[in-house]
Amino acid sequence: MVDKDKRLEGIIVPILTPLNKDETLDEKGFQKLLQYVLEGGVHGVFVLGTAGEFPAFDYKERERIVEIAMEEINGKIPVLVGTSDPSTRQVIEHIRRATKVGVDAVVVCPPYYYPLTQEEIIIHYTTIANHSKLPIIIYNIPSTTKVTIETKTVLTIVERSRIVGVKDSSGNFNSFLELLAFIKSKIPIFQGIGSLTAVSIICGAAGGVMAVANLMPRETAYLYRLIQEKKFEEAMVLQEKINKISRIFKSQSTHAGLKMALSLKGICSPYVAKPISPVSKENEAKIKKVLKESNLS
Amino acid sequence: MVDKDKRLEGIIVPILTPLNKDETLDEKGFQKLLQYVLEGGVHGVFVLGTAGEFPAFDYKERERIVEIAMEEINGKIPVLVGTSDPSTRQVIEHIRRATKVGVDAVVVCPPYYYPLTQEEIIIHYTTIANHSKLPIIIYNIPSTTKVTIETKTVLTIVERSRIVGVKDSSGNFNSFLELLAFIKSKIPIFQGIGSLTAVSIICGAAGGVMAVANLMPRETAYLYRLIQEKKFEEAMVLQEKINKISRIFKSQSTHAGLKMALSLKGICSPYVAKPISPVSKENEAKIKKVLKESNLS
Amino acid sequence: MVDKDKRLEGIIVPILTPLNKDETLDEKGFQKLLQYVLEGGVHGVFVLGTAGEFPAFDYKERERIVEIAMEEINGKIPVLVGTSDPSTRQVIEHIRRATKVGVDAVVVCPPYYYPLTQEEIIIHYTTIANHSKLPIIIYNIPSTTKVTIETKTVLTIVERSRIVGVKDSSGNFNSFLELLAFIKSKIPIFQGIGSLTAVSIICGAAGGVMAVANLMPRETAYLYRLIQEKKFEEAMVLQEKINKISRIFKSQSTHAGLKMALSLKGICSPYVAKPISPVSKENEAKIKKVLKESNLS
Amino acid sequence: MVDKDKRLEGIIVPILTPLNKDETLDEKGFQKLLQYVLEGGVHGVFVLGTAGEFPAFDYKERERIVEIAMEEINGKIPVLVGTSDPSTRQVIEHIRRATKVGVDAVVVCPPYYYPLTQEEIIIHYTTIANHSKLPIIIYNIPSTTKVTIETKTVLTIVERSRIVGVKDSSGNFNSFLELLAFIKSKIPIFQGIGSLTAVSIICGAAGGVMAVANLMPRETAYLYRLIQEKKFEEAMVLQEKINKISRIFKSQSTHAGLKMALSLKGICSPYVAKPISPVSKENEAKIKKVLKESNLS
Repeated sequence: MVDKDKRLEGIIVPILTPLNKDETLDEKGFQKLLQYVLEGGVHGVFVLGTAGEFPAFDYKERERIVEIAMEEINGKIPVLVGTSDPSTRQVIEHIRRATKVGVDAVVVCPPYYYPLTQEEIIIHYTTIANHSKLPIIIYNIPSTTKVTIETKTVLTIVERSRIVGVKDSSGNFNSFLELLAFIKSKIPIFQGIGSLTAVSIICGAAGGVMAVANLMPRETAYLYRLIQEKKFEEAMVLQEKINKISRIFKSQSTHAGLKMALSLKGICSPYVAKPISPVSKENEAKIKKVLKESNLS
Repeated sequence: MVDKDKRLEGIIVPILTPLNKDETLDEKGFQKLLQYVLEGGVHGVFVLGTAGEFPAFDYKERERIVEIAMEEINGKIPVLVGTSDPSTRQVIEHIRRATKVGVDAVVVCPPYYYPLTQEEIIIHYTTIANHSKLPIIIYNIPSTTKVTIETKTVLTIVERSRIVGVKDSSGNFNSFLELLAFIKSKIPIFQGIGSLTAVSIICGAAGGVMAVANLMPRETAYLYRLIQEKKFEEAMVLQEKINKISRIFKSQSTHAGLKMALSLKGICSPYVAKPISPVSKENEAKIKKVLKESNLS
Repeated sequence: MVDKDKRLEGIIVPILTPLNKDETLDEKGFQKLLQYVLEGGVHGVFVLGTAGEFPAFDYKERERIVEIAMEEINGKIPVLVGTSDPSTRQVIEHIRRATKVGVDAVVVCPPYYYPLTQEEIIIHYTTIANHSKLPIIIYNIPSTTKVTIETKTVLTIVERSRIVGVKDSSGNFNSFLELLAFIKSKIPIFQGIGSLTAVSIICGAAGGVMAVANLMPRETAYLYRLIQEKKFEEAMVLQEKINKISRIFKSQSTHAGLKMALSLKGICSPYVAKPISPVSKENEAKIKKVLKESNLS
Repeated sequence: MVDKDKRLEGIIVPILTPLNKDETLDEKGFQKLLQYVLEGGVHGVFVLGTAGEFPAFDYKERERIVEIAMEEINGKIPVLVGTSDPSTRQVIEHIRRATKVGVDAVVVCPPYYYPLTQEEIIIHYTTIANHSKLPIIIYNIPSTTKVTIETKTVLTIVERSRIVGVKDSSGNFNSFLELLAFIKSKIPIFQGIGSLTAVSIICGAAGGVMAVANLMPRETAYLYRLIQEKKFEEAMVLQEKINKISRIFKSQSTHAGLKMALSLKGICSPYVAKPISPVSKENEAKIKKVLKESNLS
């Protein structure tokens, strides 16, 4: 396990969960993918996030996925685990199970069925924190949860509970800057929109959670190094190069596109959990072309 | 079990799931509530819907809830069961379990984590229907799922799969009329917004799913009878009387308000699953007042 | 001019503003259209509404349009005039000009550039009312103004100012019922979504503002008569027949479709003010077909 | 007039339009404000933008406002003029009038009453460009116009018409980066959200349109200089200092808050055009406090 006192930082991969055609776990593919990103030099792995298709899996399946990740990563970099659920009570149970295998932190978004008030978001996080031995990372992703966790709400939760980070995937850069201004002195803030990684770190973010790091671990890790070395303009050029490739994955669910790319590279199988549409033949051809042009195939 | 060839119609109660303070099932309260609505004369019960807090319960808990409902209702009126989940695969598992206890139909909303396309909604329902022996009711509720099931999409699904009804909780009356125009000749359409029950049935809906029927089973059943007897204006007056009471429950989650009212009536306990906020003291007083004024206490 | 003490009711036509290709007023077409709806038996005309393309015209153009309407209608039915503008001050000037020609009432929506608070909506209407000698109709149309006038806000304005009606084009039937429950005893409420006219009047609305009445004045006026005679089911059948025709106009801006239909009938020219797209050749063919099938050509 | 061949860049002030209590122009205040920002060193002035309350003024009033701005600026920096209107035809008339006084460019947002398609946005800009001798800047501001001008749409317009810049006030940084990637090689792109100025320029924007530059012309101009000198981290610290002050203005309409601040500084009067709410006494006290603490009073 990693040094507990070290603040989390750098490029975190929201690792894909490779699946066989029948939606069982493609274990070999998962192991290969984990080794691939580890060798690429990323700074952390986030298992069972949005790109990891967490809503598709039941308790046992989630346990097996985390187990494999822990084995492969083997303490080399931090392992974060998504334990989100539409129910506060089930989140606590997910965390209890994650605690047994010794993950570094859990990442939790607000419950995503009922429309929630900010007060209910506070109830959610403080209740969870009261029942959890693991440090918690707040995950703001209104595009899937329908609710924005306001900066004031984050502040309230951070004051009351053991929170070790915030991942913001809102895409609202103005509120991201607000978050940095008010909270980065207390805990690390991560940008959850891949295209905004470089600017976010320049503005004070601790790092970025980048789905595209599944495909380009080396390039994204290098992006972080450039910024640390204050080579901001070089970083911007690399960021745009990465963004250009990322755009190709947006004609479908991002994880479907990335799985197809990794399948074309021979790392894992391309299947996604229903009801998400698989990549069309037309898009598959586009992805193949981009991989070739970018020397990623 | 009820006559399988009879079309579903009338007032369906989306039955609340009474809970103890620790969020375990208040079994006695649940039994009393089921008897209360049965005696009130409602025409069907919908277990584990939005008002029934389905996202709060795991497989085993859902099974126990359905079991009790089946025992209490004992074939007197149809029992519909909500089997929604953010994963297509888990919905199939929920339906498999519901099939074992012999419920009349299952009600399924679109997966509610990832933003979905209409094509993905079709994948969801047709996949489920291929794996289900039970008839399926489509549940359109964009306020919780973020996605509207378009009329065209409903038509496509109905053509391809065994669908026995649609529950529309969109609140968009224009699209509801479209749904009626195109689909009511094939399968019954239910209005899911309680205040719109009367007008919807006058326009051709088969009935209404009314959360407030948990508290007012007699009044809502009578509303349906008035419309059947073509006493439309009398029905409108009763509907507005019901709506006036319903409005009091909207200062909080509807199910929290209704549970408080039923607790004040001595039927079941008032607790709701986290993170939903409990009813404030101020609102509790308002509910008490309304119950008294309406001779419902 | 019509009897000032009579409450407004029935079918109001939001009259189209026929234009020549260069966007000058097609005066002859406008006169013919006004005679056509008058002969059809509608109960009021609403000049310079959303269907009337009011934002396209400057002060002088608006004056000329109103002038022609007053001449043609000649006191036979009430003439309402839209005097909306993004500025409170300009609305007052529009009303001042409308006052000179003796229109029956003005219809005003909230200013539509800046996002507004409910308090600012109140400031708008009470300021206008203080400077206006004409009775005012509140026009709620969030699809164009971005803001919903809440029922509570309508109540506040009605208490403070001389308001003689509300036109609700929100499409939210639940809030429309609320509006009826709280306000119809004071002033008439009009449904602004054409497909909801019949149900709305059955529920207590004073009438409906129907764009499609430009094309079907006779049928829509008859719809109102059926409801007055309590022939609700017959009314529902006619409403659905009207809706079926209306749907054809929704592939483009409604007023563009309606102008095309009226042009095909030889009543006025088909042109719309830029930037609204003209009807495509494909849609023109569809409209022609529907007119023929419905005996409207 | 400024050098026509020079690309626009730097800090553009969307200049406030000071008003007397009766909403007539506070001419003296306007002149003082123009001198204040000129002395502060900003790189351009944008008259009659959103902060300049353009929808409040008729043709003549707009002409007088532009006239004064031209006199005061006197060719020292570029003067851009907002000529937006809900009607394409009226925009052309606004531009015709602006042409007579020799402004450097006009800034136009999409028509803001009818919901528009991307095709209709293209019709709007290409029609305007065909009738305009002045270069046009595209203004994307979905919070007021309800419509987002997609990057693809900007590209189409730029290919067909004489466009000299884009001002993006969407707040969507991801799409802003896309805009930069595809279009900055052709024409300058400006960030319209003040808090994002520094990062945007670092990412390749030509500058920022900052409402707060009305109050802090010197500080915002210095922000631009720091970035030009590649002192990115120093720039970030200054940007956050500016943002901290800006936040105080967001409890009301930004222009209302800024006018109050400038009134407290003795530059112009605080009044805003109705229906925008004036600054509350409570907020006035807060603004006074912040000005004092920031040495801006």
